[in-house]
Amino acid sequence: MLLEETIKAIKPLDESAMHSARARQDRLTKPPGSLGRLEELSIQLAGMKADPFPSVERKAVIVMAADHGVAREGVSAYPSDVTAQMVLNFLRGGAAINVLARQAGARVTIVDIGVAVEFEPMPGLVRRKVLFGTRNSAQGPAMTREEAAQALQVGVDVLNEEAARGLDLVATGDMGIGNTTPSSAIVAAMTGLPVAQVVGRGTGIDDQALERKIKVIERALDLNRPDANDALDVLHKVGGLEIAGLAGVMIAAASQRIPIVVDGFISTASAMIAAGLAPAVRNYMLSAHQSVEIGHQAMLKHLNLRPLLDLDLRLGEGTGSALAFHLIEASARILREMATFDEAGVSDKE
Amino acid sequence: MLLEETIKAIKPLDESAMHSARARQDRLTKPPGSLGRLEELSIQLAGMKADPFPSVERKAVIVMAADHGVAREGVSAYPSDVTAQMVLNFLRGGAAINVLARQAGARVTIVDIGVAVEFEPMPGLVRRKVLFGTRNSAQGPAMTREEAAQALQVGVDVLNEEAARGLDLVATGDMGIGNTTPSSAIVAAMTGLPVAQVVGRGTGIDDQALERKIKVIERALDLNRPDANDALDVLHKVGGLEIAGLAGVMIAAASQRIPIVVDGFISTASAMIAAGLAPAVRNYMLSAHQSVEIGHQAMLKHLNLRPLLDLDLRLGEGTGSALAFHLIEASARILREMATFDEAGVSDKE
Repeated sequence: MLLEETIKAIKPLDESAMHSARARQDRLTKPPGSLGRLEELSIQLAGMKADPFPSVERKAVIVMAADHGVAREGVSAYPSDVTAQMVLNFLRGGAAINVLARQAGARVTIVDIGVAVEFEPMPGLVRRKVLFGTRNSAQGPAMTREEAAQALQVGVDVLNEEAARGLDLVATGDMGIGNTTPSSAIVAAMTGLPVAQVVGRGTGIDDQALERKIKVIERALDLNRPDANDALDVLHKVGGLEIAGLAGVMIAAASQRIPIVVDGFISTASAMIAAGLAPAVRNYMLSAHQSVEIGHQAMLKHLNLRPLLDLDLRLGEGTGSALAFHLIEASARILREMATFDEAGVSDKE
Repeated sequence: MLLEETIKAIKPLDESAMHSARARQDRLTKPPGSLGRLEELSIQLAGMKADPFPSVERKAVIVMAADHGVAREGVSAYPSDVTAQMVLNFLRGGAAINVLARQAGARVTIVDIGVAVEFEPMPGLVRRKVLFGTRNSAQGPAMTREEAAQALQVGVDVLNEEAARGLDLVATGDMGIGNTTPSSAIVAAMTGLPVAQVVGRGTGIDDQALERKIKVIERALDLNRPDANDALDVLHKVGGLEIAGLAGVMIAAASQRIPIVVDGFISTASAMIAAGLAPAVRNYMLSAHQSVEIGHQAMLKHLNLRPLLDLDLRLGEGTGSALAFHLIEASARILREMATFDEAGVSDKE
């Protein structure tokens, strides 16, 4: 299914399922509202899935990996080789996302959408490379408009393949040395905020590198002049391949009524692109956590999302999403498994 | 084991295990510190358990149930009968804590430490009733000093029985209509804050009942004059039986190096009593979540605890703790299961 058709297939939330879920929450053996955000979450899930008893049993984290030409400007604490090395670590199950997804009973799908290294076919690796990394956005567009559209389509395809395996809930994850730089560029371009207000230390750069990173992003924006009202323009000029791919995943998930657990800074940049291309996607998004990256707050405000967790995370890979899975599953289980006042013979409010 | 001996058996955190855990966190394949509070948590667990690779596989929620004489003053939105009715709901598995504990792979132990109704022996119910509910603290002490000490000992005994079954992590939960009133009284007595600043709506009272609740607590404090420096004095004069029992659970858990997941408002009142009786218990406490009850913040500040979750919960029963179990388990698994840079052949920082 092509991106354009996928966008057209996105439906609004199901009000009737939400109404049923809300009514049931008020009859469960607890003071109404006393489970706070878990109650709200269960009602959102009902609306997304058009099911008054939504289940989130089958879960996947889709991790997209890509390299960034702009990393040559010295904006990261780690060398670009680490992107490919971490892909191998993911495939062997040794990374944080592997550990946290195992705990949550979720599968992990690793997609090479633009790593600078050629990978042999390997079990568990989805090879959909669009480019061997983006070009340097401080010297020109990171990608052509067509390459960005191609990366979005990869995301749509990957999500549709995952959905065919059975999927109730999807999380996004990223790996790409340097990718807080394109993400910061996206939030600055789309919100109009000054670059210095939305740039953080990524994997842990010092003051000098932070100064350089701000200047590099300012240069990329001056040179490319992305149009805030054209998400594809922003994406191809200052974005990244994994950011594009994850936006495609989100659009396709929304079209299939699969709730999307948006991870941290990079994934939320994807969410801004996805919502720019298809505003209705926003209804299918849940924010997993508040990242340490300062620009993340501006992103969440732009999308009107409230994060579930605040654990000082700044790793990416989908790690915050995998942790949020437990809370989302809890909300669905409460709705399905708790007894009502009538069933339990408990007296209601006086 | 008696309470006094139990208090003496509490040891400080194991610095050597914490040092090993911290060193390992810095060699795992992620930027150091990028897993934020999960990293800190894993180091705390190592110190509590004196184990550089702490495991939290065997988990229990201990729910203590009791009634409150002060409920006769009209301080709750629900009738006192609900305490006993909810005990039966717990035993049948239909309450929120049953659902959330099942999801977290934790067992639930229900203790009648002071419900106003006599229960027949039932599978899953630990019958350790001290009184058929406390007396009305607005008219005199809620309990005698001896009764409060007896309830503390019940908590010690129950924890020791649970530990004998195998226990790596324990959470506290409460059930008792009216029990935000003694909890508010405890925080006001021990911090010196004005009553109106630490009293909330509990299960959902209206403005008029809130006014009444504040006056009732002020009267209880004026009449009983609890001594802020004598936790047992505060406990017996304005506390509750489940609050006492859970404080006993915490003291015994600390003495056995079992980390304690402190639930919301009522459990944190117990934590203040426990820390008042035995300051070293504080090192074994983790705060599960920030409650909606306004007095909870003052309690956490007093104990210097930072909650893991903030989900607008105000249910009790240990529900916030059961949700926090997932995060605590995640932190332990990260330490045990992630690959190091050397193992994975990933390049470290430049």
